[in-house]
Amino acid sequence: MNEILREFSLQVDLAMEARDIVRGDTDQEIPGVVEEIEELTHGKITTIRIKDQAAAQRMGKPVGTYITIEAKDLRIRHPEVHEEVSRSIAAKLKGVVDRIDKNATVLIIGLGNWRATPDALGPKTVESSPVTRHYSRYAPQALVEGMRPVCAMAPGVLGTTGIETFEIIKGVVEKVQPALVLVIDSLSAQSTERIGTTIQISDTGIQPGSAVGTPSQQAINQQSLGVPVIAIGCPMVVNAAVIASQSIQVFCQNNNIQYNRQSSLNAIKPVLSYFGGSLTVTPKEIDDLVENISNVIAYGIAYALFPGISREQLELYAS
Amino acid sequence: MNEILREFSLQVDLAMEARDIVRGDTDQEIPGVVEEIEELTHGKITTIRIKDQAAAQRMGKPVGTYITIEAKDLRIRHPEVHEEVSRSIAAKLKGVVDRIDKNATVLIIGLGNWRATPDALGPKTVESSPVTRHYSRYAPQALVEGMRPVCAMAPGVLGTTGIETFEIIKGVVEKVQPALVLVIDSLSAQSTERIGTTIQISDTGIQPGSAVGTPSQQAINQQSLGVPVIAIGCPMVVNAAVIASQSIQVFCQNNNIQYNRQSSLNAIKPVLSYFGGSLTVTPKEIDDLVENISNVIAYGIAYALFPGISREQLELYAS
Amino acid sequence: MNEILREFSLQVDLAMEARDIVRGDTDQEIPGVVEEIEELTHGKITTIRIKDQAAAQRMGKPVGTYITIEAKDLRIRHPEVHEEVSRSIAAKLKGVVDRIDKNATVLIIGLGNWRATPDALGPKTVESSPVTRHYSRYAPQALVEGMRPVCAMAPGVLGTTGIETFEIIKGVVEKVQPALVLVIDSLSAQSTERIGTTIQISDTGIQPGSAVGTPSQQAINQQSLGVPVIAIGCPMVVNAAVIASQSIQVFCQNNNIQYNRQSSLNAIKPVLSYFGGSLTVTPKEIDDLVENISNVIAYGIAYALFPGISREQLELYAS
Amino acid sequence: MNEILREFSLQVDLAMEARDIVRGDTDQEIPGVVEEIEELTHGKITTIRIKDQAAAQRMGKPVGTYITIEAKDLRIRHPEVHEEVSRSIAAKLKGVVDRIDKNATVLIIGLGNWRATPDALGPKTVESSPVTRHYSRYAPQALVEGMRPVCAMAPGVLGTTGIETFEIIKGVVEKVQPALVLVIDSLSAQSTERIGTTIQISDTGIQPGSAVGTPSQQAINQQSLGVPVIAIGCPMVVNAAVIASQSIQVFCQNNNIQYNRQSSLNAIKPVLSYFGGSLTVTPKEIDDLVENISNVIAYGIAYALFPGISREQLELYAS
Repeated sequence: MNEILREFSLQVDLAMEARDIVRGDTDQEIPGVVEEIEELTHGKITTIRIKDQAAAQRMGKPVGTYITIEAKDLRIRHPEVHEEVSRSIAAKLKGVVDRIDKNATVLIIGLGNWRATPDALGPKTVESSPVTRHYSRYAPQALVEGMRPVCAMAPGVLGTTGIETFEIIKGVVEKVQPALVLVIDSLSAQSTERIGTTIQISDTGIQPGSAVGTPSQQAINQQSLGVPVIAIGCPMVVNAAVIASQSIQVFCQNNNIQYNRQSSLNAIKPVLSYFGGSLTVTPKEIDDLVENISNVIAYGIAYALFPGISREQLELYAS
Repeated sequence: MNEILREFSLQVDLAMEARDIVRGDTDQEIPGVVEEIEELTHGKITTIRIKDQAAAQRMGKPVGTYITIEAKDLRIRHPEVHEEVSRSIAAKLKGVVDRIDKNATVLIIGLGNWRATPDALGPKTVESSPVTRHYSRYAPQALVEGMRPVCAMAPGVLGTTGIETFEIIKGVVEKVQPALVLVIDSLSAQSTERIGTTIQISDTGIQPGSAVGTPSQQAINQQSLGVPVIAIGCPMVVNAAVIASQSIQVFCQNNNIQYNRQSSLNAIKPVLSYFGGSLTVTPKEIDDLVENISNVIAYGIAYALFPGISREQLELYAS
Repeated sequence: MNEILREFSLQVDLAMEARDIVRGDTDQEIPGVVEEIEELTHGKITTIRIKDQAAAQRMGKPVGTYITIEAKDLRIRHPEVHEEVSRSIAAKLKGVVDRIDKNATVLIIGLGNWRATPDALGPKTVESSPVTRHYSRYAPQALVEGMRPVCAMAPGVLGTTGIETFEIIKGVVEKVQPALVLVIDSLSAQSTERIGTTIQISDTGIQPGSAVGTPSQQAINQQSLGVPVIAIGCPMVVNAAVIASQSIQVFCQNNNIQYNRQSSLNAIKPVLSYFGGSLTVTPKEIDDLVENISNVIAYGIAYALFPGISREQLELYAS
Repeated sequence: MNEILREFSLQVDLAMEARDIVRGDTDQEIPGVVEEIEELTHGKITTIRIKDQAAAQRMGKPVGTYITIEAKDLRIRHPEVHEEVSRSIAAKLKGVVDRIDKNATVLIIGLGNWRATPDALGPKTVESSPVTRHYSRYAPQALVEGMRPVCAMAPGVLGTTGIETFEIIKGVVEKVQPALVLVIDSLSAQSTERIGTTIQISDTGIQPGSAVGTPSQQAINQQSLGVPVIAIGCPMVVNAAVIASQSIQVFCQNNNIQYNRQSSLNAIKPVLSYFGGSLTVTPKEIDDLVENISNVIAYGIAYALFPGISREQLELYAS
């Protein structure tokens, strides 16, 4: 796996998958990595804590907490499942929200390119999110008692703005001075089963995708922004190289052939040569998936930021 | 290959690829299949003629003519390449256009789902196509001398209309009574290199995609519509199963392992299990590709239908 | 008023407004026109019946029944109001739905141009409507017990297809053979208050908008299609000429000046000269309005066609 | 006019119209306002210079230069007219571009709401603009010799982000440190003839629209951003109140009635009451207009920033 990821400059976005890759076929725990599982009616929540630098190094992900909500039926339009996942997101955000002043501003950032469907999860979530900061400042009477100031923006991507995403966000954070930043992004998974069925919430921020083969952009996290940053994401694609590599691996297992990583890579490269690492695998219903999941995340965030306000009332403030 | 295609109900859309599959590693000609090649400045045109039923059976495609225009730089925004390909499409359509009356109506049909990016090539081509039939009928003075009546529609897909695409087209054909029908559709290729770089024009019509695992829909062709039907398409996706299968095949070749089709299929199925055959591989820049190629095809058609009218004038009639 | 409407080839879409124009300042009933009013929690329903040809002539609208649902808060995102209006639409459709076989096909037609926001109500309603006919035919097990076959399409407009809307619909009706056709369209009102607040349901069908100054297109109604046709519409614009004319009229009243129709027209023409009758007045929030109202209508229709099926289940079948 | 504008909090965006309002029916020059006219093949360019504070006060616009390009056929798809207007924009920007270092960064800002068609001119212009800053920094070999770094963003509107537009821009300017900022926005005109036919370029910056009846937002100009700011706009709407007022005025003139401003306002208010000042008049073809004009402006800017680079090459860098 690792050769494939490196060759095509791919990153493992989900901590659960990073853990599986590190563990390989063994079932043994990784030192410095702690896990906890909660059951839901329609799925489950796994919390992975990476506790020290050694573990972070092995996992290829920063020290911090990664909460993974999995629900197989999230990807179909199933209002009950959607509501449970939104409520679970809200419950998991409650801790960080409780720690900030109830009148403090929250900034929601929708990463990604709104003109490329699988990459539009962030901007779409922004579109569905209740926005109140302007009312707080200029027309507080338009708000329900107790609604805090929330603002939201979609900064675009380096490839279409020519500006590093971090720079835009940093500039806006300096002006708006939020007490908390929530960053939403489409993720890439190692397995097609995860597309539209897994949501990851982490306190380690996010690494924006690179364009034009640039050196990786600056991370968007508490350290770089100077304010707590929570990242929320859902896989919308699997890289084509990952699919190909896995198929070869299963083929080798099934046929008792010695799997060889370099050899697998050599087989994949000519197949994908033309577009290289930019080839992604998506289900045909990707437009609907992005629409639905962005809604689930937007209401998860809204439930956390505006406790006690009904979904019906929240709808009136959607941007 | 064949097992993969069958398992996931995939069809080979490009005659050139069907020929390659039939030929396999041999270089030998297929009886009843005749080929001809022309060079372009920025690519080439291959004309494949399937001449009898035996050849049609082997190729898995109806008797008829399949013209393939290949241009590697078609997929980037390169006006010179775009213009050459549009002109080549026009040149290849000239024969069939010359055979109909110069005042006869032509109907352009954009197949596919305009809300699913890779499937939107047909509807987008319709959007960029000059439409004149209503002027011909109600305001002929608004037309440049010699412009024929052209109309265009995008019937949607069975999955969103609940109506067989053929039924909608047949109904409209009976009312409009065109002398020629041009059907545009996104295709699926066996190789990622073909995405956005290959255009196929054929006189055999088209087989609309099936939904909900339905029995295949009725073909849209001269026999079913009672009027000449020319299909124009460009691959926008490769099925994920095809990528996986090819990688296994190359892996086997490279490592002198006996490739076994059933075994390859067994390896692929669990990797793609969740979404099955609906997983497609697209480049990230698919939105731009669909935009550009639809434009190239629309002007190819327009040059053929309105000879002697400049691109600038044609733009004024785009729907 | 009449001069203005005639000069700019405008039609009065709402029967309630036609009645007001005929009545003028008097409060006296129009012979052959019968009215009935029902109160709602958030509005009211007025049923106007035009009973004979003489009345039809005076009203400028065909003999038939026109049901008008008015709810001031329909134009804001107010789930309770939306639900009441959807339920009212369903209640008013019940009679006609009960008269057809419970396994008979229903065809929903979304008139208008989906690329022009105020004209997109019909196509957007089609997008939000549950579609089941393909399941009925090919995968009945995917349906909830008792769901009838429903199909839906947006035929586009003459100006972009070059085909008379009636011809497309007639062609499809002949193929699909529905027992009932529902036609949805954006309407034009005489008052800005009606934008997004009034829904009209009538059994007289609809007259598609004309383009390129063509002679008016053929009506879409029971007589022309040979099957019951119910039209559902909501005003999304007021013509600019109407606004100007009304302002002059109020100005004259306020200042005791004799209002003169021709003189009013002479004042308006130079103000609107450049775009003529194509200038429409819309609120800035038109995008949201079209989104919300199309949803209200789609669920009104769905509640009528699929009685006893919950909104949550219906969502799973939205096209 | 003034009462109407004040009542509905409207501003006069075009300096040419402000001048006409100040002049009224007289033809006499305004002290401190200087004009110059150049003829084009398909229109003309009028340069208005407001030279002192007294003149600025009377005009209701800041001291500075306002260049107005008028071309009646700009609103139709007429490539020759479009090219001449683009080249005129470029010629008028040349002065300011020549004054900055040829390697200095330029920032293009597309103001307005991309989900509201008439307000989407700014964001659409950004979409069509060549963007190069990321190549300059990370892949200079991808640029044609001599292409300067250009970046572009659409900050959204206060009503959907909850953030003052100025704050977002100021934050980004501090990070990117451009030598020049170009701000594109949809304007409002006093006459429907100007919709899609008039482009204004000014060195005085821009005043973003206010939302929720807020106090007016901070201006985006050289003083507030600390770097030269050029505003480019095109009227896409006329406020409905303006249409109504003008009609009353012409009516009074035609009929020798004393026009009374307050009385005119009293007549208009009930007609527009429901949506108040938010009612705008647009032609039905507004979607096409925004598409075309944004393209004309984008290429005008590109010709100025990348002199000597062909349109074909520039297309390759469109964001």
